[in-house]
Amino acid sequence: MTQTPPTPLLDQVDRPADLKRFTDAQLSEIAREVRAETISAVSVTGGHLGAGLGVVELTVALHAVFDTPRDKLIWDVGHQCYPHKILTERRDRIRTLRMKDGLSGFTKRSESAYDPFGAAHSSTSISAALGFAVARDLGGNTPEGLGDAIAVIGDGSMSAGMAYEAMNNAGHLGKRLIVILNDNEMSIAPPVGAMSSYLSRLYAEEPFQDLKAAAKGAVSLLPEPFREGAKRAKDMLKGMAVGGTLFEQLGFSYLGPIDGHDMNQLLPVLRTVKQRATGPILIHVLTKKGKGYGPAENARDKGHGVSKFDVVTGEQKKTPSNAPSYTKVFAESLLQEAAQDDKICAVTAAMPDGTGLNLFAERYPSRCFDVGIAEQHGVTFSAALAAGGMRPFCAIYSTFLQRGYDQVVHDVALQRLPVRFAIDRAGLVGADGATHAGAFDVGYLANLPGFVVMAAADEAELRHMVATAAAHDDGPIAFRFPRGEGTGVDMPERGEPIEIGKGRIIRKGARVALLSFGTRLSEVEKAAEALAAKGITPTIADARFAKPLDRDMILSLAADHEALITIEEGAVGGFGSHVAQLLADEGVFDDGLKFRSMVLPDTFIDQASPADMYAVAGMNAEHIEAKVLDVLGVASIGAQRA
Amino acid sequence: MTQTPPTPLLDQVDRPADLKRFTDAQLSEIAREVRAETISAVSVTGGHLGAGLGVVELTVALHAVFDTPRDKLIWDVGHQCYPHKILTERRDRIRTLRMKDGLSGFTKRSESAYDPFGAAHSSTSISAALGFAVARDLGGNTPEGLGDAIAVIGDGSMSAGMAYEAMNNAGHLGKRLIVILNDNEMSIAPPVGAMSSYLSRLYAEEPFQDLKAAAKGAVSLLPEPFREGAKRAKDMLKGMAVGGTLFEQLGFSYLGPIDGHDMNQLLPVLRTVKQRATGPILIHVLTKKGKGYGPAENARDKGHGVSKFDVVTGEQKKTPSNAPSYTKVFAESLLQEAAQDDKICAVTAAMPDGTGLNLFAERYPSRCFDVGIAEQHGVTFSAALAAGGMRPFCAIYSTFLQRGYDQVVHDVALQRLPVRFAIDRAGLVGADGATHAGAFDVGYLANLPGFVVMAAADEAELRHMVATAAAHDDGPIAFRFPRGEGTGVDMPERGEPIEIGKGRIIRKGARVALLSFGTRLSEVEKAAEALAAKGITPTIADARFAKPLDRDMILSLAADHEALITIEEGAVGGFGSHVAQLLADEGVFDDGLKFRSMVLPDTFIDQASPADMYAVAGMNAEHIEAKVLDVLGVASIGAQRA
Repeated sequence: MTQTPPTPLLDQVDRPADLKRFTDAQLSEIAREVRAETISAVSVTGGHLGAGLGVVELTVALHAVFDTPRDKLIWDVGHQCYPHKILTERRDRIRTLRMKDGLSGFTKRSESAYDPFGAAHSSTSISAALGFAVARDLGGNTPEGLGDAIAVIGDGSMSAGMAYEAMNNAGHLGKRLIVILNDNEMSIAPPVGAMSSYLSRLYAEEPFQDLKAAAKGAVSLLPEPFREGAKRAKDMLKGMAVGGTLFEQLGFSYLGPIDGHDMNQLLPVLRTVKQRATGPILIHVLTKKGKGYGPAENARDKGHGVSKFDVVTGEQKKTPSNAPSYTKVFAESLLQEAAQDDKICAVTAAMPDGTGLNLFAERYPSRCFDVGIAEQHGVTFSAALAAGGMRPFCAIYSTFLQRGYDQVVHDVALQRLPVRFAIDRAGLVGADGATHAGAFDVGYLANLPGFVVMAAADEAELRHMVATAAAHDDGPIAFRFPRGEGTGVDMPERGEPIEIGKGRIIRKGARVALLSFGTRLSEVEKAAEALAAKGITPTIADARFAKPLDRDMILSLAADHEALITIEEGAVGGFGSHVAQLLADEGVFDDGLKFRSMVLPDTFIDQASPADMYAVAGMNAEHIEAKVLDVLGVASIGAQRA
Repeated sequence: MTQTPPTPLLDQVDRPADLKRFTDAQLSEIAREVRAETISAVSVTGGHLGAGLGVVELTVALHAVFDTPRDKLIWDVGHQCYPHKILTERRDRIRTLRMKDGLSGFTKRSESAYDPFGAAHSSTSISAALGFAVARDLGGNTPEGLGDAIAVIGDGSMSAGMAYEAMNNAGHLGKRLIVILNDNEMSIAPPVGAMSSYLSRLYAEEPFQDLKAAAKGAVSLLPEPFREGAKRAKDMLKGMAVGGTLFEQLGFSYLGPIDGHDMNQLLPVLRTVKQRATGPILIHVLTKKGKGYGPAENARDKGHGVSKFDVVTGEQKKTPSNAPSYTKVFAESLLQEAAQDDKICAVTAAMPDGTGLNLFAERYPSRCFDVGIAEQHGVTFSAALAAGGMRPFCAIYSTFLQRGYDQVVHDVALQRLPVRFAIDRAGLVGADGATHAGAFDVGYLANLPGFVVMAAADEAELRHMVATAAAHDDGPIAFRFPRGEGTGVDMPERGEPIEIGKGRIIRKGARVALLSFGTRLSEVEKAAEALAAKGITPTIADARFAKPLDRDMILSLAADHEALITIEEGAVGGFGSHVAQLLADEGVFDDGLKFRSMVLPDTFIDQASPADMYAVAGMNAEHIEAKVLDVLGVASIGAQRA
């Protein structure tokens, strides 16, 4: 058991309104206690540590000044919300973060009225806050009332076009709206994008160490003119700005930068804004990711995502792995291909580590592009790289590729440009939960003319698919693979291109054919073992391709078996639907075929381990076994009917 | 026959390189001829007139100065490309614009090497140009070579986040890249978004009428310092800027504004930029949409999209219609609902006219929001309006909703917020061609848990679906309808909510059931008439819902018929796939059912009339008839087997 830190003041806070009873000095102390509690909680759960530590003071200050949940406080991305959850009636469950049946690692509407608009993908907060502000002015309401709308958005999230679209609209509408730019860029290396450089220049003349004093000076000026009432608050706030900022050009009042770890700056500024703001205002707050916890502050990623750890040493308790992660296999396989082909280049949207492309960036810095949180641009940029004779690998998680869907359709597929999509985090992803599930990509890609869509059944297959994609110059190609470790199969030294549209028979059996697309193959094999004990030996096939389908193989499987069952880590509309369309078109159903398609169920599945999530989804070995027994009409004692 | 205008100089231009033989004065004359030719061509084809007329001089100047197709000239959206097509070896086909087997109304890679990156959706050009610039610097190439990359983007397209993402990345990379901001805002009312206001302020102090002289003055200064070679071009160009612009803050050199109709400004500026630009540069060009053609200049929409017209009078030749357009029915039905419910509000992404929401904006200006070309923001903004107690209708064409797909998943569906999606232009759209086809929405929406997805079979159904959506507070709901006119059915005075998940039997028959989703219903009925003559009387049903399916109705149809055929105006993965999944799960295929699913084929279909496009797709009455005969094993003489 980890010792929980003493938190005498925080223990008196049952809900945010309680914060109003404390002095400013006590609020600083409460912030210290919240920080300790956050570190303690994450040490037992793992999760996003650095982001939350960076906003501890800001969280306390916001809840002390504003009236949540009437005022709508919207955390962009939401991974910095652990201190917020501690303060908003969820402290008793804070050590269940990201666990099955526990608190989400993000904000979530269904979890609390203090989370008015959930998040997990970035850059949605300004749009959401503007929606609440407009609803308020139109007479809309919520059960908790509807007051101010406050978005807290990081500098990284500002690289997304969506944030700009929202500012553009907010500046135009001119409604009272508070955007807090949580700028922790100084803690992240390397900075990405011109906006980052611009933000740096905003405080370039006053180094961080001097800022506190400077900002204090500015803030001390605040109350006076307000007491006089001589000037409109808006003018005053504008006058405080560093200069004509980009934000002002978009119609926002700009205030800052201020030190986000100094309650003596945060509290008066937020109180002033609450009293006086009229139109949209942006408060530029400087913070340090991982603030106040040495192991996080000193980590390369500032403790962005951590495993359970020892609070004293910061040492993380990672479970030993038996096989390489799919991400690593992808990254290393791509390096192999790039070594042979100088036209191969790589694009990531602000996820160099998550996608494994950090390795590529080290080896081939001039051929690796981190475009920022900008999937739309990233996809079209890749398309033009392809049009310009390069062989781009565009590495975007399944769930985030949704951000660039129109670009995939309009710029890649319609023009039949050979962009290679490396789709990590396909299927259910575990602790990140429903918001990060990669459930839809097969459906939304395989319906595009000219696309090749593959899924790797194991890490060796992934290596071959990277080679397949590298060699495929005739139109777009995608390969998907899950989060986590491979199955431990023998790895080929080099990937060999697979013939496009050719699946493989894993094992010949009788009566029932199990046609897998993706890494459920290992569960299928487990199910087959269990079935063997019952005298049933299924044929097992790995489809490899959702598009083009291996028509001959599938029609043979249908012809030679009483039943055909597809299984994939995706929603209806994907692989199984394409197989069904083929079978229908070919008249296979006319005379009867026991066809079933096992897909993700029609629900969003909350966080748990991937295995537990697939249990909820009814897609583990036991469910496959039960499905086979059910389809064949064999009694199955105790098996779940999925 | 329309008389073609005399074009003695233009007649000597076979390809852009020929322009280099002419003097600047002659190039101005050529621009006049290109304008006359554009007007003449569009008078016989219809199409986007105003946008092209606004860039005639710019088009001539760009082709005269740069070396296309080696230099990559990328027109954002592409609807302003008619003058470009006239100059780039397509003049002989310019009177086939937007027709079957004719020139596309947009830029298109497969049509010409002078269209290095096609478009039709907005705001992709900077991403594309950056991709070419990077490819060039990495040693990529194209058959025509790879020189400069030039994006021409309108001020409206600048409201999209994607353009910002691209600028953010381009400013960071610092590569030579030319972006021409074609600012014709002064001709569009009302301006939308803070960026528009900002651009206006950039030239606010010098009214348009004085600009020509002012800009001339600036340009006359240009050659001198270059001849001296005393200053770096970049510094000089920066010095010419109005001030520290937003573009400079994002890492671009800024040059402008200049008069985009004055060759004496355009040519020297472009020549200077070509000679001297190093990093990314933005040239701010002011133009007038519809320039040089009175009827366009004076039209409310500046001749944005026109029918065939009389060149002298500008009178458009619209064919008389028998039924109201779906767009109009949607708009009027929404007004009816909004009159009863002050929580109903409406969101459009820069398409108030196209979606019919201009009527809503007139009647309820405070409840109508044009967010700019910003589908991502528009969707999430709508989600928050719903969270704030409003009943938002988010009206976005099927093809453009792709831009907001992640927001539909992450902000709407996951949070089960009751946003009403009015999806116009569902299915094939005619002259706008493949880029605008609404083929994928059923697939990418019906796979989302908690979504209700409807398609209207006719305009009366659409009215009922608007009422259904207004009444549906339990999660998101979408209804799709096509471009064009309704079928002329009797219109109910008011819409009545349809029970969620209930289809309707149109006619009971025998042997085969035709299950339609959307407006193919009229084709199904025509097919049924033809079949009746052959002694086959199909049952006809209108599914109304792709989600939730009318399970009872569909299982009954399957049980009572030898064959079941679904038909929808969408790609595989949508309605028919959901029906197949249901039938499979229920074991209906086990004992045999002649099931077929008629969906859009696996190709992108070029522009033609919608009927012609559906003929290519094999989805008209004759194809449905043939499908029935084929499935039932009845010989069909002369019918196409689809």
